Amino acid sequence: MLTRKVYQQKAFYYLDNAATTPLSHEALEAMVPYLTEDFGNASTIYTLGQRAKQALEESRRTIAETIGAKPQEIYFTSGGTESDNWALVSAMVSGRQRLLHEAIQRDPDAIVNGHLITDKIEHHAILRTCKYLESLGFDITYLDVDSKGHVDPRDVEAAIRPDTILISVMMANNEIGTLEPVMEIGRVAHDHGILFHTDAVQAYGHIPIQVGEMNIDLMSASAHKLNGPKGVGFLYMRRGVNLKSFMHGGAQERGFRAGTENVAGIVGFARAAEIACASLRARNIREQQVRDHLIARLTRGVKFAWLNGDPVDRLPNNINITFQYIEAETLLLLMNEKKIYASAGSACASGSLEPSHVLLALGVSREDALGSIRLSIDPELSIEDADYLVDTLKPMIERLRRQSSRYLEAIGELPETDAEEPEAKAAGAADAVDTEDAGGALH
Amino acid sequence: MLTRKVYQQKAFYYLDNAATTPLSHEALEAMVPYLTEDFGNASTIYTLGQRAKQALEESRRTIAETIGAKPQEIYFTSGGTESDNWALVSAMVSGRQRLLHEAIQRDPDAIVNGHLITDKIEHHAILRTCKYLESLGFDITYLDVDSKGHVDPRDVEAAIRPDTILISVMMANNEIGTLEPVMEIGRVAHDHGILFHTDAVQAYGHIPIQVGEMNIDLMSASAHKLNGPKGVGFLYMRRGVNLKSFMHGGAQERGFRAGTENVAGIVGFARAAEIACASLRARNIREQQVRDHLIARLTRGVKFAWLNGDPVDRLPNNINITFQYIEAETLLLLMNEKKIYASAGSACASGSLEPSHVLLALGVSREDALGSIRLSIDPELSIEDADYLVDTLKPMIERLRRQSSRYLEAIGELPETDAEEPEAKAAGAADAVDTEDAGGALH
Repeated sequence: MLTRKVYQQKAFYYLDNAATTPLSHEALEAMVPYLTEDFGNASTIYTLGQRAKQALEESRRTIAETIGAKPQEIYFTSGGTESDNWALVSAMVSGRQRLLHEAIQRDPDAIVNGHLITDKIEHHAILRTCKYLESLGFDITYLDVDSKGHVDPRDVEAAIRPDTILISVMMANNEIGTLEPVMEIGRVAHDHGILFHTDAVQAYGHIPIQVGEMNIDLMSASAHKLNGPKGVGFLYMRRGVNLKSFMHGGAQERGFRAGTENVAGIVGFARAAEIACASLRARNIREQQVRDHLIARLTRGVKFAWLNGDPVDRLPNNINITFQYIEAETLLLLMNEKKIYASAGSACASGSLEPSHVLLALGVSREDALGSIRLSIDPELSIEDADYLVDTLKPMIERLRRQSSRYLEAIGELPETDAEEPEAKAAGAADAVDTEDAGGALH
Repeated sequence: MLTRKVYQQKAFYYLDNAATTPLSHEALEAMVPYLTEDFGNASTIYTLGQRAKQALEESRRTIAETIGAKPQEIYFTSGGTESDNWALVSAMVSGRQRLLHEAIQRDPDAIVNGHLITDKIEHHAILRTCKYLESLGFDITYLDVDSKGHVDPRDVEAAIRPDTILISVMMANNEIGTLEPVMEIGRVAHDHGILFHTDAVQAYGHIPIQVGEMNIDLMSASAHKLNGPKGVGFLYMRRGVNLKSFMHGGAQERGFRAGTENVAGIVGFARAAEIACASLRARNIREQQVRDHLIARLTRGVKFAWLNGDPVDRLPNNINITFQYIEAETLLLLMNEKKIYASAGSACASGSLEPSHVLLALGVSREDALGSIRLSIDPELSIEDADYLVDTLKPMIERLRRQSSRYLEAIGELPETDAEEPEAKAAGAADAVDTEDAGGALH
């Protein structure tokens, strides 16, 4: 794996695997023939095209197996965002037509809005698609979550209306890693004859998924979150669901998703998915160990710091910590200088100065939300690496906090007269107060 | 180039460049860093992500330059189909809202359907999107074309209604290669304050394009038609047009197209586009020479054969010929045995037994349409290669025709008693009647 090489060389520390992952050598190797000699269009009838078609169908089988689906239930897309858009827009537009048709039988003047249930901590690919659906006249319920980010299946059930068409709740949150009770929510949906979609972009390849047992009708996934290439994903669509196309045109993907198939990308996705799902248990154990070590050292070793999300019921590779009295963006820039790469939350929203909608939904204050960072690790990160990271981060955090008069007040030191102290470029560990084992705040 | 190697080895003859093209070595080389060490998510703030971002923006500049656009007018997508869907759906949905808003000022009960003008020979990515728009209540005018496949700008003008929002006419037809009078149609659109979109998937990198001079507001293009990778394309959107998102989610592409950027694919696209556009003139001369040689030998050398489309005003690499009294699908399978790869028309519709909607629109009969093949060449194909192809195809065509009683009648031979003569696997050139220079039918 690339990451191993990188860590061995200590070129950099990559802690943003939730944003994207390096393409594995195995996936790239599988792609190479389709980036070179086997370049045929998979929709053609000659040998070159049929070889591409075969690779496509093998990839479909491989991926279907990883989630207990049938190959014909897997539709390749350009990524998780497209899969989410497809699932929501097509399910709602078709669903409203069906409901309207039924309603008109009873009352020729019937009006049906069409209703979708989701929650406040979904990825923007869901939330912004819901905003778009609202602009088309659909009603959306955005459920609250508890302080650890869980959607309550009873809240889902209570929100159901006669015109509810779809429930969409993510499998694992991309910022805080909280695992949602997908199986229970799926059961509620099916008890009421409602479709259930889950955005599994962060979960697929990271935790075990069985679509049947988990009562899933529609599921979005992406390749580049599990060491596959960027620009490819899939929508699982349970047999019989038959959503209409989102991308109209040629007859690819059995007429459900038009556009020349990205054969190399799909083959790379399948290889990466195969490896990720086969190595899942061993990776999880290792990742959880390092994750929990990092969480313990960062929350116990740093004052005014806590873990966001659920300490147990979370993605094995996700850490999200609030450090009060700092701005996460500044900390990330200091980390970048030391070649430690991480994000403040969703990469898709980075650069924006808005606090995370996920953390706000948990009840975190605006200010504390802006002081939170996400570390998403991979199995190449060792306990020693983790220790180095903590030892590097702690003085950075202390240095940043010393520029905050509110921090100085909180620790009982008088605010300095020059609160706007210029950033000290060479501040080293010696300047920092090591607060480890001094007891930090654990939310 | 891969193709050169392939031809030199005589591994196969690839005559389906309109379906897809081999990824060039240069494009692949440009992609490799982003498939390996530079894997960062372009939306992140650390060095690794910023390197990806930089590559993305350089690619945008490179591509913008090739069509005389500004970088911020280029929006990367997953391919031509997505670009077409985005342009049509967003333009129409937004346009109707705007028209409705205006109409309601005058009459609170106003109804605005919203109208789109296109033509009958567009790619399915346009035509099926139009069908979808019809299902949403929009009105679509599908203009006729002349016998060579040209849309008449006067027809476009005559079709304009007060609620016409968008005109969409392709730059070059994917089956018959006919070049449409895009500049004139764009002028008509602008004279009436209507948006103009062109599907340039077959044209981009193959003929010169200047979006300003050509009066283009929106243009779709795809990488894999010009030796770039599959799964990436762009939508050119003239400054000020500001169509709403089609893919909702993260803030990528300045908030207009969500989804983690396919950095490697985009970089490969830019490199391929740069080469294609720089080498365009030389390639065109070479391709036209071989194209016209092939056309002459196949139409003059084979009876009952004619060129579809415009002999002059066509893509330099496109040949589309009807061979009466054969089934193109069978000919293509015989060609495949000799490792000559071509299609009967659009790859996106291949495998279907329906005759080409393009040929039908030209006035070709159902039966003749089913006897037509498309050869889309590349500059690696030499005159000698072309001669070999003709010499290989002619006996195949003759052999197939001899199974047709209608052909035997046409040439004045009585139908054989055993019309269902089994396919002779080893039929060689000696069996064939060489009709070259005997004068074939040129449509």
